[in-house]
Amino acid sequence: MTPDQPGHQQPTHRDLDPHLRRYAQRTAGMTASEIRALFAVASRPEVVSLAGGMPYLPALPLDSLADELAQLIMTDGMTALQYGSAQGTPELRERICEVMALEGIRAHPDDVTVTVGSQMALDMVTRIFCDPGDVVLAEAPSYVGALSTFASYQAQVVQVPMDDDGVIPAELDAMLRSLRAQGRTPKFFYTIPNFHNPAGVTLAVARRADVQQSCAEHQVLIVEDNPYGLLSFDGQIYPAMRATDPDNVVYLGSFSKTFAPGLRVGWALAPHAVREKLVLAAESATLCPPTFTQFVVSRYLAQHDWKGQIKHYREAYRERRDAMLAALAQHMPPGCRWTHPAGGFYVWFTVPEGLDTKAMLPRAVTQRVAYVPGTAFYADSHNPPGRDNSSDSDNPPGDDNSPGDTAPAGRLMRLSFCYPTPERITEGVRRLAAVLERELELQRTFGSVRPRTMFGPQSPSPDTA
Amino acid sequence: MTPDQPGHQQPTHRDLDPHLRRYAQRTAGMTASEIRALFAVASRPEVVSLAGGMPYLPALPLDSLADELAQLIMTDGMTALQYGSAQGTPELRERICEVMALEGIRAHPDDVTVTVGSQMALDMVTRIFCDPGDVVLAEAPSYVGALSTFASYQAQVVQVPMDDDGVIPAELDAMLRSLRAQGRTPKFFYTIPNFHNPAGVTLAVARRADVQQSCAEHQVLIVEDNPYGLLSFDGQIYPAMRATDPDNVVYLGSFSKTFAPGLRVGWALAPHAVREKLVLAAESATLCPPTFTQFVVSRYLAQHDWKGQIKHYREAYRERRDAMLAALAQHMPPGCRWTHPAGGFYVWFTVPEGLDTKAMLPRAVTQRVAYVPGTAFYADSHNPPGRDNSSDSDNPPGDDNSPGDTAPAGRLMRLSFCYPTPERITEGVRRLAAVLERELELQRTFGSVRPRTMFGPQSPSPDTA
Repeated sequence: MTPDQPGHQQPTHRDLDPHLRRYAQRTAGMTASEIRALFAVASRPEVVSLAGGMPYLPALPLDSLADELAQLIMTDGMTALQYGSAQGTPELRERICEVMALEGIRAHPDDVTVTVGSQMALDMVTRIFCDPGDVVLAEAPSYVGALSTFASYQAQVVQVPMDDDGVIPAELDAMLRSLRAQGRTPKFFYTIPNFHNPAGVTLAVARRADVQQSCAEHQVLIVEDNPYGLLSFDGQIYPAMRATDPDNVVYLGSFSKTFAPGLRVGWALAPHAVREKLVLAAESATLCPPTFTQFVVSRYLAQHDWKGQIKHYREAYRERRDAMLAALAQHMPPGCRWTHPAGGFYVWFTVPEGLDTKAMLPRAVTQRVAYVPGTAFYADSHNPPGRDNSSDSDNPPGDDNSPGDTAPAGRLMRLSFCYPTPERITEGVRRLAAVLERELELQRTFGSVRPRTMFGPQSPSPDTA
Repeated sequence: MTPDQPGHQQPTHRDLDPHLRRYAQRTAGMTASEIRALFAVASRPEVVSLAGGMPYLPALPLDSLADELAQLIMTDGMTALQYGSAQGTPELRERICEVMALEGIRAHPDDVTVTVGSQMALDMVTRIFCDPGDVVLAEAPSYVGALSTFASYQAQVVQVPMDDDGVIPAELDAMLRSLRAQGRTPKFFYTIPNFHNPAGVTLAVARRADVQQSCAEHQVLIVEDNPYGLLSFDGQIYPAMRATDPDNVVYLGSFSKTFAPGLRVGWALAPHAVREKLVLAAESATLCPPTFTQFVVSRYLAQHDWKGQIKHYREAYRERRDAMLAALAQHMPPGCRWTHPAGGFYVWFTVPEGLDTKAMLPRAVTQRVAYVPGTAFYADSHNPPGRDNSSDSDNPPGDDNSPGDTAPAGRLMRLSFCYPTPERITEGVRRLAAVLERELELQRTFGSVRPRTMFGPQSPSPDTA
């Protein structure tokens, strides 16, 4: 496309951006996520936000952290405040290998690349593998941040159904065969095996070998994103797929949920040749990850009982999960369903037939409770791959199936229990249940609430609620 | 290209990477920079490195920084360790506007996007503007990190000649016309107006309006990269191009040289519509920049005499620049030339005719001095755009002109005076002069040292020297 052909972005009379014709084609895939728009609303104190994915931090030992940071500056300040290598500090890469050993991974620090959160690892993996139009496989639903990264590289995301035991191996295999029949080889399969965001489910151990075998057979790399793996409520740690498959898995890890997200320290563990490319890509992206935050994490891991801290987190999140599940059971009207996560941050929730979680969000916010509508977790909620949706024949054409459930994305929402207190979670669920009751009452009186535009003009927008 | 067509990457018998056929086409442009390969060598204590661009940090007040960090954790730890917005914290964006005001920029914090160093800002700007094959204009020579970012987005870099007063407006205008005649509009002109890396020159104030007018006339955005602007040795601060042209300039700034690079805090100031795209791109790249390092910078700016600290830096670098210029004048053989920077970190140095800075680097390292060969700063040192090179008719075809000089890139090198002490700089220059004397002696005895392979087998590689 020459710069004189505006392509996908046709200027309109309302468009005042003089740079419009200059943007790269990939910007068409860059749109504000629903989660992002919600941050502003959900941060108001009167709203119980079951929307965000912010970890609960009051469990952190600030006193000793403050002392350690002061020491760090005094003893290692000159190095910690200086440029470092694009791959990350050797000491942190060694510590990361110790962390991964808990999941059965035996890795060499040379194969670890430290990144600015695992989001950057995802960005770098997509950068080195995906040309525009390349296929990436992901679970349906999938992490919204991954979908936006894939979109920014103009990859085509094909989502594979899940159930309560994670992605369904037969569906994955069928998808791989179908793509092969079309002459297409996906660049990788992106999966969150443990305590899935947003689905709250875990890939059954018995399924992991099947998934790995299908991918190996079709020569498709696995990108195993595991930010929540150490946050199981019963202390169980699932074996990483990388542990048994070092040559075909790129493993992504993060300290955002086991220590603190504001440091933005994550990593990728990759086969050696891939790692070389990752480092070159990372170097052109940021020169090097912040040396200082790497030193903070290294020192924290060296001087703290970090496993004890993770235990604190696990207990805090279990208490919150319990509060959410109890409140859901107590308050929700018939026809609702939800997952029962054994770890992590999220419950995946299905509202009764005929309701639409996206349409009712403004009314929920008016009632001071927020969540993320299910459509955010699908690359294309109008043309998703998926299972037969005949059971939802009353839905308008184009609504999709939600794997892990037979409901369409429009009937789904993500409920986070990570950040609010158990009391606030209970209150939030109570408010949400009241919103649902009202929606159902409207439905009984006037029929289905669709099309949603019928309520449009009266709905307070998230910014005015 | 389908995944079954390896394209640019033909496997060879030596290639053991099973993922070779899977990489994106852009990985062809990702190669290890010459600077990167040098880091390992130059970090040995016996080598005087005039190669790296690491700032001099011992001027930093570590005692008070340690206290402030401890305080920061105690008072704001819960926020500083949590996720933040993709655009950066409001407080830091306000402080950044105060910093830019020193250069005559009047900006609103809403138009600032905080990034992981200004390298990430460069990456994001390229991401939102450049499709593969798009033209980007840059100075010749240009910052090696920018060239590698442009390459990773498959942009075609066209470099415009400079002289001692920076980029030559007539050359820029001619290039813009020539490209227009070919039906091509560059996406932007990337420039480092002040204390250029690597050329050490500053764009004359009288030229700035011409550059801005040419770019405006041809509807080409200016990307003004200004990491060194506050580091003039006489305290003079040049007016930013952004100050007079808010609609056609994206300004990139950094705290890496005025505070500390290990925090990786930089920013982009962009026209509002561009800023919206930048934030979306940044969100998919890292979710948000590290909250913690942003708090550290905000607190430092609020509680420290940061302008006084910049004055310390300026004096330290002036002392080093003086040491380098004095040593060059005292030790270098006839036929050498070099720039006289009024700020920043770098001297751009030309060796006598017939010598080749890349070929002689291993011999220099053997003599315990390192620099960066000029070829690193050209997107394509074999097919550069440039001025008439007839004055170097003894050079092999394909060698390019070095604007700012009439020498080809092979006769140029970057000498950094930012990091070593003045004494070490003097010693390094003395060693380098001895290397040059020896090269000249060889040349007198055996003729030109080209082709360089004649010395190849005997040359210690940088890794074995």
